[in-house]
Amino acid sequence: MRFATYRTDGGTYYGVATDEGMIALSPDFPQWPTLREVIAADALHDLALAARGRSVTHPNGSFRYEIPIPLPEKIICVGVNFPDRNAEYKDGQEAPPNMSLFIRFPRSFTGAGQPLIRPPETPQLDYEAEIAVVIGKGGRRIPQARAYDHIAAITLCNEGTLRDWVRHAKFNVTQGKNWDRSGAIGPWLVPFSAPAQLDDIRLTTKVNGELRQDDRTSRMLFPIRRQIEYISTFTTLVPGDIIVTGTPTGAGARFDPPRFLKPGDVVEIEAEGIGKLVNTVEDE
Amino acid sequence: MRFATYRTDGGTYYGVATDEGMIALSPDFPQWPTLREVIAADALHDLALAARGRSVTHPNGSFRYEIPIPLPEKIICVGVNFPDRNAEYKDGQEAPPNMSLFIRFPRSFTGAGQPLIRPPETPQLDYEAEIAVVIGKGGRRIPQARAYDHIAAITLCNEGTLRDWVRHAKFNVTQGKNWDRSGAIGPWLVPFSAPAQLDDIRLTTKVNGELRQDDRTSRMLFPIRRQIEYISTFTTLVPGDIIVTGTPTGAGARFDPPRFLKPGDVVEIEAEGIGKLVNTVEDE
Repeated sequence: MRFATYRTDGGTYYGVATDEGMIALSPDFPQWPTLREVIAADALHDLALAARGRSVTHPNGSFRYEIPIPLPEKIICVGVNFPDRNAEYKDGQEAPPNMSLFIRFPRSFTGAGQPLIRPPETPQLDYEAEIAVVIGKGGRRIPQARAYDHIAAITLCNEGTLRDWVRHAKFNVTQGKNWDRSGAIGPWLVPFSAPAQLDDIRLTTKVNGELRQDDRTSRMLFPIRRQIEYISTFTTLVPGDIIVTGTPTGAGARFDPPRFLKPGDVVEIEAEGIGKLVNTVEDE
Repeated sequence: MRFATYRTDGGTYYGVATDEGMIALSPDFPQWPTLREVIAADALHDLALAARGRSVTHPNGSFRYEIPIPLPEKIICVGVNFPDRNAEYKDGQEAPPNMSLFIRFPRSFTGAGQPLIRPPETPQLDYEAEIAVVIGKGGRRIPQARAYDHIAAITLCNEGTLRDWVRHAKFNVTQGKNWDRSGAIGPWLVPFSAPAQLDDIRLTTKVNGELRQDDRTSRMLFPIRRQIEYISTFTTLVPGDIIVTGTPTGAGARFDPPRFLKPGDVVEIEAEGIGKLVNTVEDE
């Protein structure tokens, strides 16, 4: 079952994504305005039941994907989390003892099928394939052993980055990671119930059909269980929060010369068991 | 005129803060659930008119301050923005060409008069006095010359930091800046109408009555006008967004040995024309 948020000429809906199109469910559940409230109510299963036997409300071609959760309280991203990623920074520093974290605003993302926007200020738009987990049950100081109990769903993220703006200042990467609609999340949420959905799945990026990133979640330096434990040490996680769990080596900045995204490029991010997040690239 | 958000046993309100207590106004304006919506409607003046001639609804002692805007879309903080602050980092790096930016979640702040929380994980809770500006009119790529037109109000921030957690990882300061209730914003919003309210005002911190920080906004390395221009280059600012504009030298980490906050300490942050933000310190 796949749960999506989408927009038609008539408004914004959430529902179940099928191969033929969307089964709209939000009109039946006014008590839950978005998938964030559905998740807070632990009610993805209720949506699944409501969708049973229904035909498609909005066929393919009549809607656009939005970010699955329009306004999460937090989107926390984990940096430098795959082998060789630290070396890519070429700053002579050793791998750090803790994970790097930064925050993105929801408006820095667009939905599946929408263009990533390259701004006039810099040509260094780059892709980063990542698995994103959506928090179901909130909590603080969640131990690793129980971390997976707090994940409601998983999805994909193209953690699009304006590479030179990441290094504009003394610390932090905030400004290179928060250009409006420079990344994408989606296309949908897949309910999470079994560790095998996350522990060792393949994650790839293709740009115009060429494989650029290809790794497995089992090789993360800081596994997802540890991410939830560490982050919840300092902040209370709440339903709908999104953790973007880190990208493999192979972003465009890695090549010599770098291979940044250009208008017309097609970026496909894919993970076993989740699906494929496809975006084009457009100049603003 | 001073606009505050506060909590009583009966609920959460916004209204006008007087020396005797609060004039509740939110019950009269159900169309604006919080001061964020008031500001989006450019309606602080309407609140001021509504308060005229009214007596206090909730006298001092019967309420607690909350953060003035409970859920801004963004809280963006500017780092390393006063003379000598770069040297305090002792990392041999030269002052950067652009401002450092990081993001804080609303839940990392508490209201005026409430305790800052020192967690069991680290004793390195530190203060940072800052002026915070609240965006009124939203925008993207706002030029410096028009930046002040986009500020609706100003307030104070104790940008409380868990010092060792700021340096946990390769980049970014996210985790040291986002402990639940480790900082404070308030006590109230002062409407902004004249450049003199921001251009050269004195900002101080006292800990248990001892002066620790003392500087003037005119000495910022990146002035507030430039902050709005730079930040709005990459992200669309919206009404209620908060920019925390940087702290002077003199935080507790600067002393040798460092002087971190302890339970029972009283931290007073004061700025001309805004008021005083006072918080105690408690162990979690």
